[in-house]
Amino acid sequence: MKIGVDYYPEQWDRALWQTDADLMARTGVKLVRLGEFAWSRLEPKDGEFDFTWLDEAISNFSRHAMGIVLCTPTSCPPLWMYETYPDIVQVGTDGNRLQTGIRAHRCLNAPMFLYYAKRITEQLAKRYANNPAVAAWQIDNELEAYPCTCEVCRGLFRDWLIDKYDDLANINAAFGNIVWSGEYSDISQIQPPNAYPKAWQNPALCLEYSRFSADMTAKFAHDMAMIIKRENPRAKVTTNTFFSENTPDFYKLFSTLDFVSFDNYPPVKLTDEDGMSSSHAFRLDMMRGVKQKNFWVMEQLSGPTGSWMPMGPTPRPGQIKGYAMQAMAHGADTVMHFRWRTANKGAEMYWHGLIDHSNVPGRRFNEFAELCRLAPKLSVIETTELVSDVAILYSPDNDTAFRIQPQTEGFSYFEQLRYFHAAFSKYGVNVDIVSPTTDLSKYKAVIAPSMYIYDKSSAENIYRYVIKGGTVVMTARSGVKDPCNNCIMEPLPTVYREMIGAEVSEYDPIGKEEQTIVDFAGNTYKCRQWCDILELGTARAYAEYKDSFYSGKPAVTMNRYCSGVAYYIGTVCHMDFYEKFAGNIMKQTGIPRLKDLPKGVEVTTRTNGLDDYIFFFNNSEQEADIILPKAMFSIIDDTEKDKLKLKPFDMDIVRK
Amino acid sequence: MKIGVDYYPEQWDRALWQTDADLMARTGVKLVRLGEFAWSRLEPKDGEFDFTWLDEAISNFSRHAMGIVLCTPTSCPPLWMYETYPDIVQVGTDGNRLQTGIRAHRCLNAPMFLYYAKRITEQLAKRYANNPAVAAWQIDNELEAYPCTCEVCRGLFRDWLIDKYDDLANINAAFGNIVWSGEYSDISQIQPPNAYPKAWQNPALCLEYSRFSADMTAKFAHDMAMIIKRENPRAKVTTNTFFSENTPDFYKLFSTLDFVSFDNYPPVKLTDEDGMSSSHAFRLDMMRGVKQKNFWVMEQLSGPTGSWMPMGPTPRPGQIKGYAMQAMAHGADTVMHFRWRTANKGAEMYWHGLIDHSNVPGRRFNEFAELCRLAPKLSVIETTELVSDVAILYSPDNDTAFRIQPQTEGFSYFEQLRYFHAAFSKYGVNVDIVSPTTDLSKYKAVIAPSMYIYDKSSAENIYRYVIKGGTVVMTARSGVKDPCNNCIMEPLPTVYREMIGAEVSEYDPIGKEEQTIVDFAGNTYKCRQWCDILELGTARAYAEYKDSFYSGKPAVTMNRYCSGVAYYIGTVCHMDFYEKFAGNIMKQTGIPRLKDLPKGVEVTTRTNGLDDYIFFFNNSEQEADIILPKAMFSIIDDTEKDKLKLKPFDMDIVRK
Amino acid sequence: MKIGVDYYPEQWDRALWQTDADLMARTGVKLVRLGEFAWSRLEPKDGEFDFTWLDEAISNFSRHAMGIVLCTPTSCPPLWMYETYPDIVQVGTDGNRLQTGIRAHRCLNAPMFLYYAKRITEQLAKRYANNPAVAAWQIDNELEAYPCTCEVCRGLFRDWLIDKYDDLANINAAFGNIVWSGEYSDISQIQPPNAYPKAWQNPALCLEYSRFSADMTAKFAHDMAMIIKRENPRAKVTTNTFFSENTPDFYKLFSTLDFVSFDNYPPVKLTDEDGMSSSHAFRLDMMRGVKQKNFWVMEQLSGPTGSWMPMGPTPRPGQIKGYAMQAMAHGADTVMHFRWRTANKGAEMYWHGLIDHSNVPGRRFNEFAELCRLAPKLSVIETTELVSDVAILYSPDNDTAFRIQPQTEGFSYFEQLRYFHAAFSKYGVNVDIVSPTTDLSKYKAVIAPSMYIYDKSSAENIYRYVIKGGTVVMTARSGVKDPCNNCIMEPLPTVYREMIGAEVSEYDPIGKEEQTIVDFAGNTYKCRQWCDILELGTARAYAEYKDSFYSGKPAVTMNRYCSGVAYYIGTVCHMDFYEKFAGNIMKQTGIPRLKDLPKGVEVTTRTNGLDDYIFFFNNSEQEADIILPKAMFSIIDDTEKDKLKLKPFDMDIVRK
Repeated sequence: MKIGVDYYPEQWDRALWQTDADLMARTGVKLVRLGEFAWSRLEPKDGEFDFTWLDEAISNFSRHAMGIVLCTPTSCPPLWMYETYPDIVQVGTDGNRLQTGIRAHRCLNAPMFLYYAKRITEQLAKRYANNPAVAAWQIDNELEAYPCTCEVCRGLFRDWLIDKYDDLANINAAFGNIVWSGEYSDISQIQPPNAYPKAWQNPALCLEYSRFSADMTAKFAHDMAMIIKRENPRAKVTTNTFFSENTPDFYKLFSTLDFVSFDNYPPVKLTDEDGMSSSHAFRLDMMRGVKQKNFWVMEQLSGPTGSWMPMGPTPRPGQIKGYAMQAMAHGADTVMHFRWRTANKGAEMYWHGLIDHSNVPGRRFNEFAELCRLAPKLSVIETTELVSDVAILYSPDNDTAFRIQPQTEGFSYFEQLRYFHAAFSKYGVNVDIVSPTTDLSKYKAVIAPSMYIYDKSSAENIYRYVIKGGTVVMTARSGVKDPCNNCIMEPLPTVYREMIGAEVSEYDPIGKEEQTIVDFAGNTYKCRQWCDILELGTARAYAEYKDSFYSGKPAVTMNRYCSGVAYYIGTVCHMDFYEKFAGNIMKQTGIPRLKDLPKGVEVTTRTNGLDDYIFFFNNSEQEADIILPKAMFSIIDDTEKDKLKLKPFDMDIVRK
Repeated sequence: MKIGVDYYPEQWDRALWQTDADLMARTGVKLVRLGEFAWSRLEPKDGEFDFTWLDEAISNFSRHAMGIVLCTPTSCPPLWMYETYPDIVQVGTDGNRLQTGIRAHRCLNAPMFLYYAKRITEQLAKRYANNPAVAAWQIDNELEAYPCTCEVCRGLFRDWLIDKYDDLANINAAFGNIVWSGEYSDISQIQPPNAYPKAWQNPALCLEYSRFSADMTAKFAHDMAMIIKRENPRAKVTTNTFFSENTPDFYKLFSTLDFVSFDNYPPVKLTDEDGMSSSHAFRLDMMRGVKQKNFWVMEQLSGPTGSWMPMGPTPRPGQIKGYAMQAMAHGADTVMHFRWRTANKGAEMYWHGLIDHSNVPGRRFNEFAELCRLAPKLSVIETTELVSDVAILYSPDNDTAFRIQPQTEGFSYFEQLRYFHAAFSKYGVNVDIVSPTTDLSKYKAVIAPSMYIYDKSSAENIYRYVIKGGTVVMTARSGVKDPCNNCIMEPLPTVYREMIGAEVSEYDPIGKEEQTIVDFAGNTYKCRQWCDILELGTARAYAEYKDSFYSGKPAVTMNRYCSGVAYYIGTVCHMDFYEKFAGNIMKQTGIPRLKDLPKGVEVTTRTNGLDDYIFFFNNSEQEADIILPKAMFSIIDDTEKDKLKLKPFDMDIVRK
Repeated sequence: MKIGVDYYPEQWDRALWQTDADLMARTGVKLVRLGEFAWSRLEPKDGEFDFTWLDEAISNFSRHAMGIVLCTPTSCPPLWMYETYPDIVQVGTDGNRLQTGIRAHRCLNAPMFLYYAKRITEQLAKRYANNPAVAAWQIDNELEAYPCTCEVCRGLFRDWLIDKYDDLANINAAFGNIVWSGEYSDISQIQPPNAYPKAWQNPALCLEYSRFSADMTAKFAHDMAMIIKRENPRAKVTTNTFFSENTPDFYKLFSTLDFVSFDNYPPVKLTDEDGMSSSHAFRLDMMRGVKQKNFWVMEQLSGPTGSWMPMGPTPRPGQIKGYAMQAMAHGADTVMHFRWRTANKGAEMYWHGLIDHSNVPGRRFNEFAELCRLAPKLSVIETTELVSDVAILYSPDNDTAFRIQPQTEGFSYFEQLRYFHAAFSKYGVNVDIVSPTTDLSKYKAVIAPSMYIYDKSSAENIYRYVIKGGTVVMTARSGVKDPCNNCIMEPLPTVYREMIGAEVSEYDPIGKEEQTIVDFAGNTYKCRQWCDILELGTARAYAEYKDSFYSGKPAVTMNRYCSGVAYYIGTVCHMDFYEKFAGNIMKQTGIPRLKDLPKGVEVTTRTNGLDDYIFFFNNSEQEADIILPKAMFSIIDDTEKDKLKLKPFDMDIVRK
């Protein structure tokens, strides 16, 4: 496991560079990220480049044998660029251009921005792509699928649509533009939906604009990566991603990049949101699933966070180290802490680093140092990966489409995924979160929540999996929409109906009201948000409703289909249901379960094919005692153990 | 009773037209609404008209003897129009022009919009006004008093003001423009109030701008109607109205139209908002009161509603049929369901019709079919109307003025009207909601809540009514303002003081705090929002305050004035007060009361002068048992009954 | 004590002028404020002045021996000015120009506005500055530090920055512009921060823009005052200030004006916000502290308030008189009620005056008349002032900086000041609220909450005070920032560390969570928002934490430093802590305390050097009984008393 830090030499007095590097070296830091946001120092005037300071900064760290992660600085163009080309700034959804002087406000499609972005990237690549100190490259910072409405984006969107649909007649048909007389008679009439007022939008247009934005973002990352690869085809290139209102399509974004990296800010304050205490691991598993490979954490929680918004609490003792190791337990091999020292200036001065404004290392730094000391012991882990019996399917299209049309009060696509993730995780198994087009044959169970937007290859993939003996779990709002976000004229769940063996005769969007279902074994659970009223075909009822006019109707079904089994959950429940349900699925499919794990303890396993390493992470504020099924060797304590005692946020790793 | 549906042939494959029409005919549908929003198909290019598809659609239904309601499509101009004339789109209150691609965004005053709107209306009228299949016309859709701030509206507003006030000096005086040096010295200085920031506005200007907008909307509807009448003077023309943030002045809007039609979406989920469970009937009674004639429902609830906002619950069993009949019980003779089949495309795809996206008729459709089967039985009702002993006065001016200046936290003009409506309705009587200028002589009691803005003819009308022996109930905030929304320099309730026989020495806007009043019989009630502290003249106290520094002062008064009686309620209470108060008024005025009606049961009576038909509607989720005073003939079951057992949302109609 | 009223002759029929003046005279009104907002009548057309009506209005009152407070009308330019010069209106933070027809919307920096503002002020000054009836002048109305973003303000801001920093390099360094590549390479790149989106702003830029705005506002007031002084150097000039979102820097604003005047609207509804029932007095003490002199109330609460927002409750009996006298008890010698009669027109018609719309004097007027009758008795007070043992330091810079970066959920700079003010006030002592640069030597205790932004002279002032034997109380978030709003690279509280004798090893921004501290005597208190974890140097622990990982660490410290004592409170508590703490401080520093004052009773003392007058104000809704330490002479009742019985909002004044 490699531990690194994010560092901004240009923000500090030269006098500090050396002492910082010395302390890093002593502490055991192996990687330093540089260059993010430094464009105005790399190119102080249009076409005048200055790399001397970066040369020095790199050698400052590389002489201590630290590797460098070099960033392209394109998130923040220098102000001289806006002066000549004010059009390089995004235009918001209300038609106003964003202000300058902030970050991430450049339009990724603006021609002059692209000209400059490519030039600075090329300059950096030419100078450093073959520098042996450079371990990896980061493109830009936290790229999003920006809903920019500038003239250039409008034009590109029109081209993108014509590329996809050939002509306006096809677009009109696909979008249902006849509704409200919105038929395009000229390409210039196509406008992005992000305008005024926010309501009344055509969901087909909205989804396509979101896809367009995601494509443009992926294209930008790809183009920049190729500039670096041109100089050194073996250069490792990534971008650091995160979750936001405009989450990019992770699968597209990383498709041509070398690995996934993630900005990891787990919650300092634990909440037991409806039993999903382990929910942060969900994000880590999602990152691993993007390329189904181990990933990096490019920014790791290091202190209180806040900026223009109020600060939150400081990480509790154990969290600095523990959350870094939690990331490893879910597939991160490299964890870079954000940031070495808290910024004393600028808008993010309260987004704390490992060392406080005072530059006096304290409790959090000491814990980080402990992590660094431990890291070499964990090198054996680096050749391992997680192998899972359970997969949850995540589809960016569904995610976006549910944001465009929130089905019922309280309904959340992400929440459904997280419930299933939390439910299976409680039994101590690895859970993958992957694209619906991934090869599913290796999984014993596949959870496919709310497969809302029909995608031919996804649907065929799921059918193929079940036909060959797989067990799939689907949920309400599956098969609702065609690829254009229009409703399919068939009984729900339409394309999945045959496999599910039941159909939806009617649905009741009950929002925040609660009702009751009862399962085949007589257990009752609360349900809410949505109730599909099901009619059985070949399926059997797994649970039925107890309330309203559809009392007695199936709420959850199970169908044997070819060699496989397809479950359908027509409503949304709480953790008690999902936990029991996951347990049943695991029993049925023969997935081994750990029972009676203390609350908050997360267990995952990494393997290199020969040895299995089991990670026990106490993600709670109470001490946890775990009895191992047999004595195992702890690679943390170098000793054989038959039980573990974990302090809050502590981890132990045993070889099976 | 005639049952119809709203249908959009242009949104469906031709293949469906015939099967849809066949099913409608079999089901018993008598009317089909067509043409709404179809402008881009009726005039695909500027001046190129295509009516062939509409001809076909009309004959598709008329050949099954269904009547047609034809809509003018002016709510949604085709996109080609915006291209040449971008100025036809409204400008919002913040100065931004609305986007295209939505609906209802055209400016009703924009010259080029009007040119095109008149032309397409004329084309439709010439072709169809004498078509015997066309039973009625709908102008546009859900017209509002849009607060557009475009240049044209600004100019017209200036003209409108000059027309009304003759010169700037009069306007300055009427508006009190000297306050804050806002005196106009040139007409160009007049600006609509709907600007930035939203506060600080002159209430006189605000009220006049709202009246102007309402006038312009009424003028638009009138002008379009006249185009149709020019072709066929006997054509029946309406527009479908609804309640919104910019509710038009219903009285003005329908003054030259033939009948009122209403988009009726009663709440699926019953709430017992402070005892006003029957509150939806309030809207129906208000619609009947607009022209004091029976009305149509042009859009009737048919399924779950939602769009860009989350969906709500599906109509409960009984509501599809029951709510249509509830509308009839309050004066609707024709009910058109929105819509035949749920849209599979466009922004409103989750505003469900009778048939779901699947095109498989289900529970809701079956209930609709039942309604259709029942309808012919109810033809006897068509010649009847509601005759009421009680009237509540609704004034659009008051409604608007209270929105401009919300008097105290929680205060709502509508809420007051609804309390009185609910209170009298609990005793099973018909209640009219009418304009304050209506002839009141036929009523035994008139409720005139918060007659805030002085209108000479309204005030005289009320005086005349009381002088001749009527009983009027007035409430706090009456007589406050002159017609220009300025405060009158007289003790409150100013113009009504003589009749009320008491005056307001002071008031206390207590907002959401609660205090207590006690009536003459010793009953106590909570009051809130507003406390008029009254000094008795000729009046007697009906109730007095128990709290604060005005404990012991009258809160409610009763005054014998000439041959009549005038009550004044100086505060706002809860349902317990209004129910008791209404009971007393009915006793005093000799209005017969039904007692002990089960909760949620609504009773109204329609008469043709010979026979009275009593409607018992169970607007609740519990079965209701009603003992009739004597055996009566149920026209639903064709049998004599002395008691009724009503399932939830069920109705029975008996001949008295 | 002088009582006056605000009057707007131009808003009333001439017929009322005389009767109003007569009633004022009979009632005992001594001062009338005129001219505010009357520009359109003083200069109906560009350059055409009309003072005849104002002449008449002045003599109307002066002939009754009432003094005049004359206002410059610059808050509301006439509409003809906008017509020619639309640029004189402010541009909001979102880039939109404010509408006309409201008030306070002119840009104080717009050249043409200034041209006209100076001209009308000069005209008024020439005509009236030597009129013996004119007792004082008010510049404009409720001037704020407007965050205008118009082109002129942008340009002036750039000049202001260059004046302060000499060149762009210094600005870049001071602002930390290298963060996010925001370095200015041309002065034109400097933009005000109040733009789109609102987040992501550089706090250094934000603070400087706020200082610039405050400077411009002070300059405007100064320039206008000088125009008047040019005509009559002995003219008394003020402006009426208030608290708002854009509160000006009071110290700067009044530095060259003759006295402070304040618009005083105490809350009608008493709230016991965490024990700070006397919190309104805080504002009065702050006003007295601005120039450390007695002040005027230019607008005093007279009735229910409301406008476009809902009305609040009417003042309770006793408040009209009592709150005027409360102001006097805290240093107001003149109280002008806003306003004589409630406006019948315009946006503020529900901001009630003494007399209602009806023009019938009522309860509130009668109480005002009582106040007027009492006032002559209180003339002995006019030569007295408040002398305080305790000072609280208020810094506009800190106030602004905490608004820019709210440290943690719930944290409020003002709240901290108010807690200390309330705590000391409970013991019946005078409390000053003054600038941190004030001479502190006269105080026995100085409270310096959250001295966040470092200011050399303030810090030296505090050190000097403690070194010479003073007792200072500091709190969390002191010494955090350099003068440019950047974090200081030293252990907190940085510059105050030596004096405090302890340092912050870490902090925990716990927001709305609550934890517990225990003081040296074993008392426990809840704390919240922020927890500084302290390490003792020379200091001793006064209280320590009981929770979280820093249980047992000091939360509050006390340090003897040179001849003085410095306390540091590292967290935020509730009233129970502050009250006990204040008691201890008073014991330690020998400040005499009144004990067992009934809840809500406020006690202050004014002195002329010979006689002390003690004010007992019952700021509660219960009657209060107070035992005096000895018999004293009441100047209200002209009698010796050894106990006081005060009705709600009643005041007694005894000579000590």
